[in-house]
Amino acid sequence: MKKFQVIGIGNAMVDVLARVDDAFLVENGVEKGIMTLIDTARAAELYSHMGPAREVSGGSAANTIAGLAALGARTAYIGKVKDDQLGAIFAHDMRAQGAGYDTPLAPKTHAAETGRCMVMVSPDSERSMNTYLGVSEFLAPDDIDAAQMAEAEWLYLEGYRFDGPDSQAAFAKAIDACKGAGGKVSVTLSDPFCVNRHREAFRTLIHDHIDLLFCNEHELKALYETDDLDAAIVRARKDVPMLACTVGAKGAHATSGGQDYHDPATNAAVVDVTGAGDLFAAGFLYGVVSGRDPLTCLRMGNHAAGEVISHIGARPEADLKALFGAHGLL
Amino acid sequence: MKKFQVIGIGNAMVDVLARVDDAFLVENGVEKGIMTLIDTARAAELYSHMGPAREVSGGSAANTIAGLAALGARTAYIGKVKDDQLGAIFAHDMRAQGAGYDTPLAPKTHAAETGRCMVMVSPDSERSMNTYLGVSEFLAPDDIDAAQMAEAEWLYLEGYRFDGPDSQAAFAKAIDACKGAGGKVSVTLSDPFCVNRHREAFRTLIHDHIDLLFCNEHELKALYETDDLDAAIVRARKDVPMLACTVGAKGAHATSGGQDYHDPATNAAVVDVTGAGDLFAAGFLYGVVSGRDPLTCLRMGNHAAGEVISHIGARPEADLKALFGAHGLL
Repeated sequence: MKKFQVIGIGNAMVDVLARVDDAFLVENGVEKGIMTLIDTARAAELYSHMGPAREVSGGSAANTIAGLAALGARTAYIGKVKDDQLGAIFAHDMRAQGAGYDTPLAPKTHAAETGRCMVMVSPDSERSMNTYLGVSEFLAPDDIDAAQMAEAEWLYLEGYRFDGPDSQAAFAKAIDACKGAGGKVSVTLSDPFCVNRHREAFRTLIHDHIDLLFCNEHELKALYETDDLDAAIVRARKDVPMLACTVGAKGAHATSGGQDYHDPATNAAVVDVTGAGDLFAAGFLYGVVSGRDPLTCLRMGNHAAGEVISHIGARPEADLKALFGAHGLL
Repeated sequence: MKKFQVIGIGNAMVDVLARVDDAFLVENGVEKGIMTLIDTARAAELYSHMGPAREVSGGSAANTIAGLAALGARTAYIGKVKDDQLGAIFAHDMRAQGAGYDTPLAPKTHAAETGRCMVMVSPDSERSMNTYLGVSEFLAPDDIDAAQMAEAEWLYLEGYRFDGPDSQAAFAKAIDACKGAGGKVSVTLSDPFCVNRHREAFRTLIHDHIDLLFCNEHELKALYETDDLDAAIVRARKDVPMLACTVGAKGAHATSGGQDYHDPATNAAVVDVTGAGDLFAAGFLYGVVSGRDPLTCLRMGNHAAGEVISHIGARPEADLKALFGAHGLL
């Protein structure tokens, strides 16, 4: 038995969550529903216009690993924060969840701070994210311990981190070590704009190394440059042994072993969609590492996503294990 | 018309909120339901044992002023944070609420950090608070602008800050300036243990200067060293022109002009009682500065408290004005 069932690698950051109306998004030039990278000056300007907020640890792959740890999976997480107050909060929340977090801190003297994501939640529960990456950008091969990667059954790579060449090299190092020891690798496409920025790198990675591809319909269409989801799924089926693709309120599709699967979304009341994709991945991966069939994996993904969209913030608040038990999934 | 309807002075801090079970409180030696002051070492130890948390700006009088500002009152707030990340969060949240916050920051070189309060919420919705005061302890007369105090219809003083001699001197300076210009002064007793620590100072202050006393039943009994709430209220009636005393799930009492008033609590579902007293004071004071009768003040207090106990965190999340309007209070 390997020490870790899943090791995640991604942008470590703290979410700053506030409710806004759509007029605020327009006035402040924030594009609704997507993630936009911003610099320090823009972050300060936008924050000064935002209403009172709350801070909750976030980061896409970190949310997924937190969900897996909450379900009892053996996990670790690699992502860079600084030795500052927000970095301490991020590290605390990962460790307190039992998620396994030991990435070396960027020193106090580093010019950048711990990354943060301003999450603006609209009345329709949609979220618009403006991200100041801070030191999370500086994740590099030195932060990857090859021996640890060899101890992983699965890697879970966050597509957002493709934005940094050093981080792409870190991914390559992790993949080599993990696969060299018989492990498998999954990736999430993270965001359609991120896919557009790095389409060829994603396609090469996926074709050459990926055992399980996570995405939503917009990201998959962007990857294969088509408006036809079915056609994109057919393409993906040739590229990867397993695919898990969310389709918003309609739930999620999976393909595995040449078979197609679908499970509708839960009917949870939606408060804030932040983290829906991250927790879907947590639930689905929990099913995979527990040896469950693809339809059960989908159901686990949809129930974990249903929990996280029922409240503000992208980390689970309810007992996910109890929730899965109540739905006959354990 | 004075520039400010209410200026609050108190411990500026960020709350670190986590759910715990009662066994956690026992194992970690945390006294349930009260506020305990802790040092940096104890704060670090306790935090390392706490589960994943979220951060929301807090501070008792700051919560009250935030509530008043949310209701549209003209407010200012005085309380000390440091030039660090949590200080920036506190200042942002006060300013974003329109609460009026300009207290000079403690410099980056200060040995202490911005204060924080670890709020442990039990399954029964009770909260236990462990507070590391940080730089909020250093509130001193220099932080009080006498000209600003003269522009206040009401001061609202946080009893917790009686723990610092410099802050008591700051209170005296503020009271002199406010009363010298015809303003009135209210104080909240904050906590029965705080009352026990400073009983004589509180009694002298209340007898000599206070126009409106806020407290809960336990604090009032501690002030007058009696187990009989009715007897304590009779004593208070002689000491202050107006009293507002909360009695938990039974709502609140007021005395004014020799008359007694009572209003039952709202039947809000209780999630977290953190901030109940603070928001009761916000609602009650909003009634006072709007020239409403004592029973309406009580109702406003109970509805504001009812909102804040319906969710995690001590700052209002719903639109308090709309809430008051829906209950025919505006």
